[in-house]
Amino acid sequence: MTIPAPALELLSEHACFGGVQRFYRHASSAIGLPMRFSVYLPPQALAGTRCPALFYLAGLTCSEETFAIKAGAQRIAAREGLILIAPDTSPRDAQVPGETDSWDFGIAAGFYLDATQAPWREHYRMESYIADELHHIARVAFPVAAGRIGIFGHSMGGHGALTLALRHRERFASVSAFAPIAHPSVCPWGIKAFTGYLGDDRTAWAAHDATQLMRQASCPFPGGILIDQGEADKFLAEQLYPDDFAAACAAAGQPLQLRRHPGYDHGYYFIETFIEDHLLHHAAQLR
Amino acid sequence: MTIPAPALELLSEHACFGGVQRFYRHASSAIGLPMRFSVYLPPQALAGTRCPALFYLAGLTCSEETFAIKAGAQRIAAREGLILIAPDTSPRDAQVPGETDSWDFGIAAGFYLDATQAPWREHYRMESYIADELHHIARVAFPVAAGRIGIFGHSMGGHGALTLALRHRERFASVSAFAPIAHPSVCPWGIKAFTGYLGDDRTAWAAHDATQLMRQASCPFPGGILIDQGEADKFLAEQLYPDDFAAACAAAGQPLQLRRHPGYDHGYYFIETFIEDHLLHHAAQLR
Repeated sequence: MTIPAPALELLSEHACFGGVQRFYRHASSAIGLPMRFSVYLPPQALAGTRCPALFYLAGLTCSEETFAIKAGAQRIAAREGLILIAPDTSPRDAQVPGETDSWDFGIAAGFYLDATQAPWREHYRMESYIADELHHIARVAFPVAAGRIGIFGHSMGGHGALTLALRHRERFASVSAFAPIAHPSVCPWGIKAFTGYLGDDRTAWAAHDATQLMRQASCPFPGGILIDQGEADKFLAEQLYPDDFAAACAAAGQPLQLRRHPGYDHGYYFIETFIEDHLLHHAAQLR
Repeated sequence: MTIPAPALELLSEHACFGGVQRFYRHASSAIGLPMRFSVYLPPQALAGTRCPALFYLAGLTCSEETFAIKAGAQRIAAREGLILIAPDTSPRDAQVPGETDSWDFGIAAGFYLDATQAPWREHYRMESYIADELHHIARVAFPVAAGRIGIFGHSMGGHGALTLALRHRERFASVSAFAPIAHPSVCPWGIKAFTGYLGDDRTAWAAHDATQLMRQASCPFPGGILIDQGEADKFLAEQLYPDDFAAACAAAGQPLQLRRHPGYDHGYYFIETFIEDHLLHHAAQLR
Protein backbone atom coordinates (compact mmCIF):
# COMPACT_ATOMS: atom_id res chain seq x y z
CA MET A 1 0.00 0.00 0.00
CA THR A 2 1.26 3.43 -0.85
CA ILE A 3 0.56 6.03 1.73
CA PRO A 4 0.19 9.48 0.18
CA ALA A 5 2.84 12.03 0.99
CA PRO A 6 1.64 13.90 4.03
CA ALA A 7 0.98 17.57 4.49
CA LEU A 8 3.25 18.55 7.34
CA GLU A 9 2.65 21.75 9.27
CA LEU A 10 5.90 23.21 10.56
CA LEU A 11 5.13 24.46 14.07
CA SER A 12 8.58 25.78 14.92
CA GLU A 13 12.18 25.64 13.83
CA HIS A 14 15.30 26.38 15.86
CA ALA A 15 18.89 26.52 14.68
CA CYS A 16 20.91 24.04 16.75
CA PHE A 17 24.54 22.93 16.31
CA GLY A 18 24.53 24.05 12.70
CA GLY A 19 21.39 22.07 11.90
CA VAL A 20 17.73 22.68 12.70
CA GLN A 21 15.42 21.32 15.39
CA ARG A 22 11.89 21.28 13.98
CA PHE A 23 8.46 20.45 15.35
CA TYR A 24 5.69 19.32 13.04
CA ARG A 25 1.96 18.59 13.22
CA HIS A 26 0.08 16.57 10.64
CA ALA A 27 -3.19 14.73 10.10
CA SER A 28 -2.33 11.10 10.84
CA SER A 29 -4.17 8.50 8.80
CA ALA A 30 -3.09 5.72 11.15
CA ILE A 31 -4.32 7.51 14.25
CA GLY A 32 -7.21 9.41 12.71
CA LEU A 33 -6.22 12.54 14.60
CA PRO A 34 -3.52 15.20 14.38
CA MET A 35 -0.14 14.01 15.61
CA ARG A 36 3.07 15.85 16.41
CA PHE A 37 6.68 14.84 16.03
CA SER A 38 10.09 16.47 16.20
CA VAL A 39 12.91 16.23 13.69
CA TYR A 40 16.52 17.24 14.04
CA LEU A 41 18.24 17.74 10.69
CA PRO A 42 22.03 17.88 11.00
CA PRO A 43 24.10 20.24 8.85
CA GLN A 44 24.86 17.41 6.43
CA ALA A 45 21.13 16.94 5.73
CA LEU A 46 20.63 20.67 5.25
CA ALA A 47 23.46 20.57 2.73
CA GLY A 48 21.60 17.94 0.73
CA THR A 49 23.31 14.73 1.86
CA ARG A 50 21.06 11.76 2.57
CA CYS A 51 21.70 10.73 6.17
CA PRO A 52 20.87 7.79 8.40
CA ALA A 53 17.93 8.47 10.72
CA LEU A 54 17.07 7.40 14.25
CA PHE A 55 13.57 7.12 15.65
CA TYR A 56 13.48 7.89 19.37
CA LEU A 57 10.48 6.71 21.39
CA ALA A 58 9.92 8.47 24.71
CA GLY A 59 8.53 7.15 27.96
CA LEU A 60 5.38 7.57 30.03
CA THR A 61 4.18 11.18 30.48
CA CYS A 62 6.52 12.43 27.73
CA SER A 63 5.85 14.07 24.38
CA GLU A 64 7.57 14.78 21.08
CA GLU A 65 9.43 17.60 22.87
CA THR A 66 11.07 15.62 25.66
CA PHE A 67 13.97 14.11 23.75
CA ALA A 68 14.70 17.31 21.84
CA ILE A 69 14.85 19.36 25.04
CA LYS A 70 16.49 17.01 27.52
CA ALA A 71 18.71 14.39 25.87
CA GLY A 72 21.47 16.55 24.40
CA ALA A 73 21.57 14.40 21.27
CA GLN A 74 21.74 17.13 18.65
CA ARG A 75 25.41 17.88 19.29
CA ILE A 76 26.36 14.32 18.43
CA ALA A 77 23.87 14.03 15.58
CA ALA A 78 25.38 17.16 14.03
CA ARG A 79 28.85 15.69 14.23
CA GLU A 80 27.87 12.22 12.99
CA GLY A 81 25.36 13.30 10.35
CA LEU A 82 22.29 11.64 11.87
CA ILE A 83 18.66 12.70 11.51
CA LEU A 84 16.69 12.36 14.76
CA ILE A 85 12.91 11.81 14.68
CA ALA A 86 10.83 11.68 17.87
CA PRO A 87 7.05 11.11 17.80
CA ASP A 88 4.57 11.86 20.54
CA THR A 89 3.77 9.03 22.96
CA SER A 90 0.05 8.57 22.21
CA PRO A 91 -2.87 10.15 20.42
CA ARG A 92 -4.02 13.40 22.00
CA ASP A 93 -7.63 14.37 22.40
CA ALA A 94 -9.05 11.05 21.19
CA GLN A 95 -11.92 11.69 23.59
CA VAL A 96 -11.78 8.14 24.92
CA PRO A 97 -13.44 8.01 28.35
CA GLY A 98 -10.78 7.55 31.01
CA GLU A 99 -7.83 8.39 28.79
CA THR A 100 -6.62 11.07 31.21
CA ASP A 101 -7.31 9.12 34.41
CA SER A 102 -3.86 7.50 34.67
CA TRP A 103 -0.34 8.66 33.96
CA ASP A 104 0.58 5.13 32.87
CA PHE A 105 -2.34 4.35 30.55
CA GLY A 106 -4.12 6.37 27.87
CA ILE A 107 -2.75 9.78 26.96
CA ALA A 108 1.07 9.84 26.89
CA ALA A 109 1.04 6.08 27.48
CA GLY A 110 0.25 4.54 24.10
CA PHE A 111 2.78 1.71 24.55
CA TYR A 112 3.63 1.71 20.82
CA LEU A 113 1.07 -0.91 19.81
CA ASP A 114 -2.25 -0.99 17.97
CA ALA A 115 -5.03 -1.49 20.49
CA THR A 116 -7.48 -4.26 19.68
CA GLN A 117 -9.98 -3.45 22.41
CA ALA A 118 -12.80 -0.90 22.37
CA PRO A 119 -12.80 1.99 22.98
CA TRP A 120 -9.03 2.26 22.39
CA ARG A 121 -8.74 0.52 19.06
CA GLU A 122 -10.05 3.41 16.96
CA HIS A 123 -7.25 5.89 17.68
CA TYR A 124 -4.62 4.18 19.87
CA ARG A 125 -2.66 2.75 16.93
CA MET A 126 0.88 3.85 17.69
CA GLU A 127 2.55 0.85 16.04
CA SER A 128 0.94 1.56 12.68
CA TYR A 129 1.65 5.22 13.17
CA ILE A 130 5.37 4.78 13.78
CA ALA A 131 6.33 1.68 11.82
CA ASP A 132 4.20 2.53 8.76
CA GLU A 133 3.13 6.15 8.59
CA LEU A 134 5.98 8.00 10.27
CA HIS A 135 8.49 5.62 8.66
CA HIS A 136 7.01 6.60 5.31
CA ILE A 137 7.03 10.28 6.19
CA ALA A 138 10.67 10.05 7.18
CA ARG A 139 11.58 8.62 3.80
CA VAL A 140 9.58 11.01 1.65
CA ALA A 141 9.72 14.28 3.60
CA PHE A 142 13.32 14.26 4.81
CA PRO A 143 16.68 13.32 3.25
CA VAL A 144 16.85 9.89 4.91
CA ALA A 145 19.24 7.41 3.36
CA ALA A 146 17.40 4.34 2.04
CA GLY A 147 17.32 1.43 4.46
CA ARG A 148 19.23 3.28 7.11
CA ILE A 149 16.72 3.89 9.89
CA GLY A 150 17.45 2.80 13.45
CA ILE A 151 15.22 2.97 16.52
CA PHE A 152 15.79 3.56 20.21
CA GLY A 153 13.88 4.77 23.21
CA HIS A 154 13.49 5.07 26.95
CA SER A 155 11.39 3.07 29.41
CA MET A 156 8.00 2.62 27.66
CA GLY A 157 9.84 3.87 24.59
CA GLY A 158 12.57 1.31 25.14
CA HIS A 159 9.85 -1.34 25.08
CA GLY A 160 8.56 0.30 21.90
CA ALA A 161 11.97 0.37 20.26
CA LEU A 162 12.73 -3.28 21.02
CA THR A 163 9.31 -4.57 20.01
CA LEU A 164 8.96 -2.47 16.84
CA ALA A 165 12.50 -3.43 15.79
CA LEU A 166 11.74 -7.11 16.33
CA ARG A 167 8.31 -6.95 14.70
CA HIS A 168 9.52 -4.88 11.72
CA ARG A 169 13.03 -6.16 11.25
CA GLU A 170 13.10 -5.03 7.62
CA ARG A 171 12.34 -1.44 8.57
CA PHE A 172 14.77 -0.85 11.43
CA ALA A 173 18.42 -1.64 10.87
CA SER A 174 19.66 -1.00 14.42
CA VAL A 175 18.17 -0.83 17.91
CA SER A 176 19.09 0.28 21.41
CA ALA A 177 17.30 1.28 24.60
CA PHE A 178 17.60 3.12 27.89
CA ALA A 179 15.98 1.36 30.84
CA PRO A 180 13.39 -0.41 28.68
CA ILE A 181 10.28 -2.13 29.97
CA ALA A 182 11.87 -5.32 28.74
CA HIS A 183 9.32 -7.94 29.79
CA PRO A 184 6.00 -6.08 29.99
CA SER A 185 3.82 -9.18 30.35
CA VAL A 186 5.09 -9.65 33.89
CA CYS A 187 5.29 -6.08 35.23
CA PRO A 188 2.49 -3.81 36.50
CA TRP A 189 2.88 -1.16 33.77
CA GLY A 190 2.78 -3.77 31.03
CA ILE A 191 -0.03 -5.82 32.53
CA LYS A 192 -2.19 -2.70 32.88
CA ALA A 193 -1.44 -1.51 29.35
CA PHE A 194 -1.78 -4.88 27.65
CA THR A 195 -5.01 -5.68 29.48
CA GLY A 196 -6.49 -2.35 28.46
CA TYR A 197 -5.25 -2.24 24.88
CA LEU A 198 -5.07 -5.95 23.99
CA GLY A 199 -7.55 -7.61 26.36
CA ASP A 200 -7.32 -10.32 28.97
CA ASP A 201 -6.06 -13.09 26.67
CA ARG A 202 -2.37 -13.19 27.43
CA THR A 203 -1.54 -15.12 24.30
CA ALA A 204 -2.09 -11.84 22.42
CA TRP A 205 0.46 -10.11 24.61
CA ALA A 206 3.46 -12.16 23.53
CA ALA A 207 3.67 -10.44 20.15
CA HIS A 208 4.25 -7.12 21.93
CA ASP A 209 6.68 -8.28 24.62
CA ALA A 210 10.37 -7.84 23.79
CA THR A 211 11.47 -10.79 25.91
CA GLN A 212 8.90 -13.14 24.40
CA LEU A 213 9.62 -11.91 20.88
CA MET A 214 13.33 -12.48 21.36
CA ARG A 215 12.66 -16.01 22.61
CA GLN A 216 11.15 -16.75 19.18
CA ALA A 217 13.98 -15.09 17.24
CA SER A 218 17.34 -16.16 15.92
CA CYS A 219 19.93 -13.42 16.15
CA PRO A 220 17.77 -10.78 14.50
CA PHE A 221 20.37 -8.01 14.97
CA PRO A 222 23.81 -9.48 14.30
CA GLY A 223 25.38 -6.06 14.86
CA GLY A 224 24.27 -6.22 18.46
CA ILE A 225 21.78 -4.47 20.72
CA LEU A 226 22.82 -1.87 23.31
CA ILE A 227 20.88 -1.36 26.54
CA ASP A 228 21.88 1.02 29.33
CA GLN A 229 20.31 0.59 32.76
CA GLY A 230 20.82 2.66 35.89
CA GLU A 231 21.16 0.64 39.07
CA ALA A 232 19.54 3.39 41.16
CA ASP A 233 16.49 3.34 38.88
CA LYS A 234 13.50 3.14 41.22
CA PHE A 235 11.52 1.23 38.59
CA LEU A 236 14.18 -1.38 37.92
CA ALA A 237 13.06 -4.16 40.27
CA GLU A 238 9.32 -3.94 39.70
CA GLN A 239 8.90 -2.80 36.10
CA LEU A 240 11.90 -3.33 33.83
CA TYR A 241 13.32 -6.90 33.96
CA PRO A 242 16.37 -6.41 31.73
CA ASP A 243 17.77 -9.77 32.86
CA ASP A 244 14.80 -11.56 31.33
CA PHE A 245 15.53 -9.90 28.01
CA ALA A 246 19.22 -10.68 28.35
CA ALA A 247 18.42 -14.36 28.93
CA ALA A 248 16.20 -14.38 25.84
CA CYS A 249 19.01 -12.76 23.82
CA ALA A 250 21.46 -15.38 25.03
CA ALA A 251 19.07 -18.15 23.98
CA ALA A 252 18.50 -16.49 20.60
CA GLY A 253 22.19 -16.01 19.92
CA GLN A 254 21.57 -12.26 19.91
CA PRO A 255 24.62 -10.17 20.90
CA LEU A 256 23.53 -7.80 23.67
CA GLN A 257 25.55 -5.19 25.49
CA LEU A 258 23.60 -4.65 28.72
CA ARG A 259 25.45 -2.02 30.73
CA ARG A 260 24.56 -1.44 34.38
CA HIS A 261 25.48 1.92 35.82
CA PRO A 262 25.72 2.27 39.60
CA GLY A 263 24.09 5.43 40.96
CA TYR A 264 22.12 6.36 37.85
CA ASP A 265 18.35 6.73 38.00
CA HIS A 266 15.50 6.56 35.46
CA GLY A 267 15.62 10.14 34.19
CA TYR A 268 17.20 12.25 31.50
CA TYR A 269 20.34 13.04 33.52
CA PHE A 270 21.04 9.33 33.05
CA ILE A 271 20.10 9.42 29.37
CA GLU A 272 22.19 12.46 28.51
CA THR A 273 25.21 10.85 30.18
CA PHE A 274 25.14 7.89 27.81
CA ILE A 275 23.37 9.31 24.75
CA GLU A 276 26.60 9.62 22.79
CA ASP A 277 27.27 5.90 23.05
CA HIS A 278 23.82 5.17 21.64
CA LEU A 279 24.19 7.47 18.67
CA LEU A 280 27.59 5.94 17.93
CA HIS A 281 26.12 2.43 18.26
CA HIS A 282 23.54 3.26 15.60
CA ALA A 283 25.89 5.27 13.40
CA ALA A 284 28.28 2.33 13.17
CA GLN A 285 25.51 -0.04 12.09
CA LEU A 286 23.78 2.39 9.74
CA ARG A 287 26.88 3.37 7.80
CA MET B 1 29.28 40.44 58.27
CA THR B 2 29.37 36.69 58.60
CA ILE B 3 26.31 34.92 57.34
CA PRO B 4 25.72 31.69 59.25
CA ALA B 5 26.12 28.44 57.35
CA PRO B 6 22.75 27.59 55.92
CA ALA B 7 20.59 24.54 56.43
CA LEU B 8 20.14 23.15 52.94
CA GLU B 9 17.39 20.69 52.19
CA LEU B 10 18.39 18.30 49.41
CA LEU B 11 15.28 17.89 47.24
CA SER B 12 16.73 15.51 44.68
CA GLU B 13 20.00 14.17 43.38
CA HIS B 14 20.75 12.60 40.00
CA ALA B 15 23.95 10.99 38.82
CA CYS B 16 25.06 12.78 35.65
CA PHE B 17 28.32 12.40 33.70
CA GLY B 18 30.07 10.91 36.72
CA GLY B 19 29.02 13.80 38.95
CA VAL B 20 25.72 14.70 40.58
CA GLN B 21 22.98 17.14 39.66
CA ARG B 22 21.33 18.30 42.87
CA PHE B 23 18.36 20.51 43.72
CA TYR B 24 18.19 22.29 47.06
CA ARG B 25 15.71 24.37 49.05
CA HIS B 26 16.66 26.58 51.96
CA ALA B 27 15.33 29.42 54.10
CA SER B 28 16.83 32.53 52.53
CA SER B 29 17.71 35.33 54.89
CA ALA B 30 18.10 37.80 52.02
CA ILE B 31 14.70 37.00 50.53
CA GLY B 32 12.86 36.13 53.74
CA LEU B 33 11.27 33.12 52.07
CA PRO B 34 12.35 29.65 50.97
CA MET B 35 14.48 29.65 47.82
CA ARG B 36 15.60 26.87 45.52
CA PHE B 37 18.76 26.42 43.52
CA SER B 38 20.49 23.68 41.56
CA VAL B 39 24.10 22.54 41.84
CA TYR B 40 26.08 20.31 39.54
CA LEU B 41 29.11 18.79 41.24
CA PRO B 42 31.57 17.29 38.76
CA PRO B 43 33.46 14.07 39.51
CA GLN B 44 36.49 16.08 40.62
CA ALA B 45 34.43 17.82 43.33
CA LEU B 46 32.97 14.50 44.50
CA ALA B 47 36.53 13.22 44.80
CA GLY B 48 37.40 16.07 47.15
CA THR B 49 39.11 18.53 44.82
CA ARG B 50 38.18 22.20 45.21
CA CYS B 51 36.87 23.37 41.84
CA PRO B 52 36.03 26.68 40.18
CA ALA B 53 32.31 27.45 40.20
CA LEU B 54 29.98 29.20 37.77
CA PHE B 55 26.76 30.93 38.72
CA TYR B 56 24.19 30.73 35.92
CA LEU B 57 21.28 33.19 35.95
CA ALA B 58 18.25 32.20 33.89
CA GLY B 59 15.82 34.36 31.98
CA LEU B 60 12.18 35.39 32.27
CA THR B 61 9.72 32.57 33.11
CA CYS B 62 12.56 30.20 34.05
CA SER B 63 13.48 28.52 37.32
CA GLU B 64 16.41 26.80 38.99
CA GLU B 65 15.62 23.75 36.84
CA THR B 66 15.86 25.32 33.38
CA PHE B 67 19.62 25.39 32.97
CA ALA B 68 20.09 21.92 34.46
CA ILE B 69 17.53 20.40 32.10
CA LYS B 70 18.09 22.28 28.86
CA ALA B 71 21.62 23.65 28.50
CA GLY B 72 23.67 20.46 28.30
CA ALA B 73 26.41 22.00 30.43
CA GLN B 74 27.09 19.08 32.76
CA ARG B 75 29.04 17.11 30.16
CA ILE B 76 31.55 19.93 29.82
CA ALA B 77 31.58 20.75 33.53
CA ALA B 78 32.41 17.10 34.25
CA ARG B 79 35.32 17.20 31.82
CA GLU B 80 36.64 20.59 32.95
CA GLY B 81 36.02 20.19 36.67
CA LEU B 82 33.55 23.06 37.09
CA ILE B 83 30.79 23.37 39.68
CA LEU B 84 27.57 24.84 38.24
CA ILE B 85 25.14 26.74 40.48
CA ALA B 86 21.80 28.05 39.19
CA PRO B 87 19.36 29.94 41.42
CA ASP B 88 15.68 30.53 40.83
CA THR B 89 14.71 33.73 39.01
CA SER B 90 12.67 35.44 41.76
CA PRO B 91 11.08 34.83 45.13
CA ARG B 92 8.11 32.47 44.98
CA ASP B 93 4.95 32.96 46.95
CA ALA B 94 5.89 36.38 48.32
CA GLN B 95 2.17 37.18 48.21
CA VAL B 96 2.80 40.56 46.61
CA PRO B 97 -0.39 41.75 44.87
CA GLY B 98 0.10 41.52 41.11
CA GLU B 99 3.21 39.36 41.21
CA THR B 100 1.62 36.76 38.94
CA ASP B 101 -0.05 39.22 36.55
CA SER B 102 2.85 39.47 34.08
CA TRP B 103 5.34 37.00 32.68
CA ASP B 104 7.96 39.77 32.54
CA PHE B 105 7.56 41.27 36.03
CA GLY B 106 7.14 39.74 39.48
CA ILE B 107 7.40 35.97 39.83
CA ALA B 108 10.14 34.48 37.61
CA ALA B 109 11.16 38.04 36.68
CA GLY B 110 13.18 39.32 39.62
CA PHE B 111 15.76 41.03 37.39
CA TYR B 112 18.59 40.24 39.83
CA LEU B 113 18.34 43.47 41.83
CA ASP B 114 17.12 44.56 45.27
CA ALA B 115 13.81 46.35 44.85
CA THR B 116 13.57 49.70 46.60
CA GLN B 117 9.86 50.25 46.03
CA ALA B 118 6.93 48.94 48.08
CA PRO B 119 5.49 46.36 47.97
CA TRP B 120 8.42 44.63 46.22
CA ARG B 121 11.26 45.69 48.46
CA GLU B 122 10.53 43.25 51.29
CA HIS B 123 11.19 40.03 49.36
CA TYR B 124 12.38 40.91 45.84
CA ARG B 125 16.06 41.13 46.80
CA MET B 126 17.71 38.90 44.24
CA GLU B 127 20.99 40.83 44.15
CA SER B 128 21.59 40.34 47.87
CA TYR B 129 20.44 36.77 47.54
CA ILE B 130 22.89 35.88 44.77
CA ALA B 131 25.90 38.12 45.36
CA ASP B 132 25.88 37.74 49.15
CA GLU B 133 23.89 34.79 50.41
CA LEU B 134 24.24 32.24 47.61
CA HIS B 135 27.86 33.29 47.08
CA HIS B 136 28.45 32.51 50.75
CA ILE B 137 26.58 29.22 50.52
CA ALA B 138 28.68 28.21 47.52
CA ARG B 139 31.85 28.75 49.49
CA VAL B 140 30.83 27.02 52.70
CA ALA B 141 28.56 24.22 51.50
CA PHE B 142 30.42 23.06 48.37
CA PRO B 143 34.08 22.48 47.48
CA VAL B 144 34.47 25.78 45.62
CA ALA B 145 38.04 26.99 45.10
CA ALA B 146 38.64 30.32 46.86
CA GLY B 147 38.22 33.34 44.62
CA ARG B 148 37.31 31.27 41.60
CA ILE B 149 33.65 32.00 40.98
CA GLY B 150 32.43 33.20 37.58
CA ILE B 151 28.95 34.26 36.50
CA PHE B 152 26.94 33.98 33.31
CA GLY B 153 23.35 33.96 32.23
CA HIS B 154 20.72 34.31 29.53
CA SER B 155 18.50 37.24 28.58
CA MET B 156 17.28 38.67 31.92
CA GLY B 157 19.97 36.47 33.45
CA GLY B 158 22.54 37.88 31.02
CA HIS B 159 21.61 41.31 32.37
CA GLY B 160 21.99 39.87 35.85
CA ALA B 161 25.37 38.33 35.13
CA LEU B 162 26.80 41.49 33.61
CA THR B 163 25.45 43.82 36.30
CA LEU B 164 26.32 41.62 39.26
CA ALA B 165 29.81 41.05 37.86
CA LEU B 166 30.32 44.78 37.42
CA ARG B 167 28.79 45.71 40.79
CA HIS B 168 30.65 42.96 42.70
CA ARG B 169 33.90 42.77 40.81
CA GLU B 170 35.70 41.26 43.80
CA ARG B 171 33.27 38.34 43.93
CA PHE B 172 33.09 37.28 40.31
CA ALA B 173 36.31 36.58 38.46
CA SER B 174 34.84 35.99 35.00
CA VAL B 175 31.63 36.84 33.16
CA SER B 176 29.79 35.93 29.96
CA ALA B 177 26.24 36.09 28.64
CA PHE B 178 23.81 34.69 26.08
CA ALA B 179 21.55 37.29 24.48
CA PRO B 180 21.64 39.59 27.51
CA ILE B 181 19.29 42.50 28.13
CA ALA B 182 22.34 44.67 27.75
CA HIS B 183 20.86 48.16 28.09
CA PRO B 184 17.69 47.71 30.15
CA SER B 185 17.08 51.42 30.76
CA VAL B 186 16.04 51.84 27.13
CA CYS B 187 14.05 48.65 26.43
CA PRO B 188 10.46 47.75 27.38
CA TRP B 189 11.39 44.83 29.65
CA GLY B 190 13.92 46.93 31.54
CA ILE B 191 11.78 50.04 31.78
CA LYS B 192 8.88 48.00 33.19
CA ALA B 193 11.08 46.19 35.69
CA PHE B 194 13.11 49.20 36.81
CA THR B 195 10.00 51.37 37.17
CA GLY B 196 8.34 48.72 39.30
CA TYR B 197 11.30 47.68 41.41
CA LEU B 198 13.34 50.92 41.53
CA GLY B 199 10.78 53.68 40.92
CA ASP B 200 10.40 56.43 38.36
CA ASP B 201 13.69 58.21 39.08
CA ARG B 202 15.91 57.03 36.26
CA THR B 203 19.09 58.09 38.01
CA ALA B 204 18.59 55.04 40.24
CA TRP B 205 18.45 52.79 37.19
CA ALA B 206 21.99 53.44 36.00
CA ALA B 207 23.51 51.33 38.76
CA HIS B 208 21.64 48.28 37.44
CA ASP B 209 22.19 48.81 33.72
CA ALA B 210 25.16 46.93 32.23
CA THR B 211 25.77 49.51 29.52
CA GLN B 212 25.72 52.42 31.93
CA LEU B 213 27.87 50.57 34.47
CA MET B 214 30.44 49.78 31.79
CA ARG B 215 30.52 53.43 30.74
CA GLN B 216 31.76 54.23 34.26
CA ALA B 217 34.31 51.41 34.32
CA SER B 218 37.90 50.97 33.22
CA CYS B 219 38.59 47.51 31.86
CA PRO B 220 37.05 45.68 34.80
CA PHE B 221 37.59 42.24 33.23
CA PRO B 222 41.00 42.24 31.53
CA GLY B 223 40.52 38.59 30.58
CA GLY B 224 37.64 39.62 28.37
CA ILE B 225 33.87 39.20 28.28
CA LEU B 226 32.12 36.76 25.96
CA ILE B 227 28.61 37.43 24.62
CA ASP B 228 26.77 35.23 22.13
CA GLN B 229 23.77 36.64 20.28
CA GLY B 230 21.49 34.97 17.77
CA GLU B 231 20.58 37.09 14.79
CA ALA B 232 17.16 35.42 14.45
CA ASP B 233 16.37 36.31 18.07
CA LYS B 234 12.92 37.90 17.98
CA PHE B 235 13.79 40.06 20.99
CA LEU B 236 17.05 41.40 19.59
CA ALA B 237 15.88 44.66 18.05
CA GLU B 238 13.49 45.78 20.76
CA GLN B 239 14.90 44.41 24.00
CA LEU B 240 18.59 43.49 23.95
CA TYR B 241 20.85 46.27 22.54
CA PRO B 242 24.17 44.41 22.54
CA ASP B 243 25.74 47.12 20.38
CA ASP B 244 25.20 49.68 23.13
CA PHE B 245 27.07 47.45 25.54
CA ALA B 246 29.80 46.84 22.97
CA ALA B 247 30.24 50.60 22.52
CA ALA B 248 30.51 51.05 26.27
CA CYS B 249 33.12 48.26 26.42
CA ALA B 250 35.11 49.93 23.67
CA ALA B 251 35.06 53.22 25.56
CA ALA B 252 36.05 51.47 28.79
CA GLY B 253 38.92 49.56 27.19
CA GLN B 254 37.09 46.33 28.04
CA PRO B 255 37.89 43.42 25.72
CA LEU B 256 34.60 42.00 24.48
CA GLN B 257 33.97 39.09 22.17
CA LEU B 258 30.45 39.72 20.84
CA ARG B 259 29.60 36.88 18.48
CA ARG B 260 26.59 37.15 16.19
CA HIS B 261 25.13 33.88 14.95
CA PRO B 262 22.91 33.96 11.85
CA GLY B 263 19.76 31.87 12.17
CA TYR B 264 19.89 31.33 15.92
CA ASP B 265 16.97 32.40 18.11
CA HIS B 266 16.53 33.28 21.79
CA GLY B 267 16.05 29.78 23.19
CA TYR B 268 17.99 26.92 24.67
CA TYR B 269 18.72 25.29 21.29
CA PHE B 270 20.88 28.37 20.77
CA ILE B 271 22.37 28.17 24.25
CA GLU B 272 23.25 24.48 24.07
CA THR B 273 24.99 25.06 20.74
CA PHE B 274 27.46 27.51 22.28
CA ILE B 275 27.50 26.46 25.94
CA GLU B 276 30.85 24.72 25.60
CA ASP B 277 32.55 27.93 24.51
CA HIS B 278 31.21 29.71 27.60
CA LEU B 279 32.39 27.06 30.02
CA LEU B 280 35.82 27.11 28.40
CA HIS B 281 35.88 30.94 28.54
CA HIS B 282 35.31 30.78 32.29
CA ALA B 283 37.55 27.78 32.90
CA ALA B 284 40.48 29.56 31.27
CA GLN B 285 40.03 32.63 33.47
CA LEU B 286 39.31 30.73 36.69
CA ARG B 287 42.31 28.42 36.52
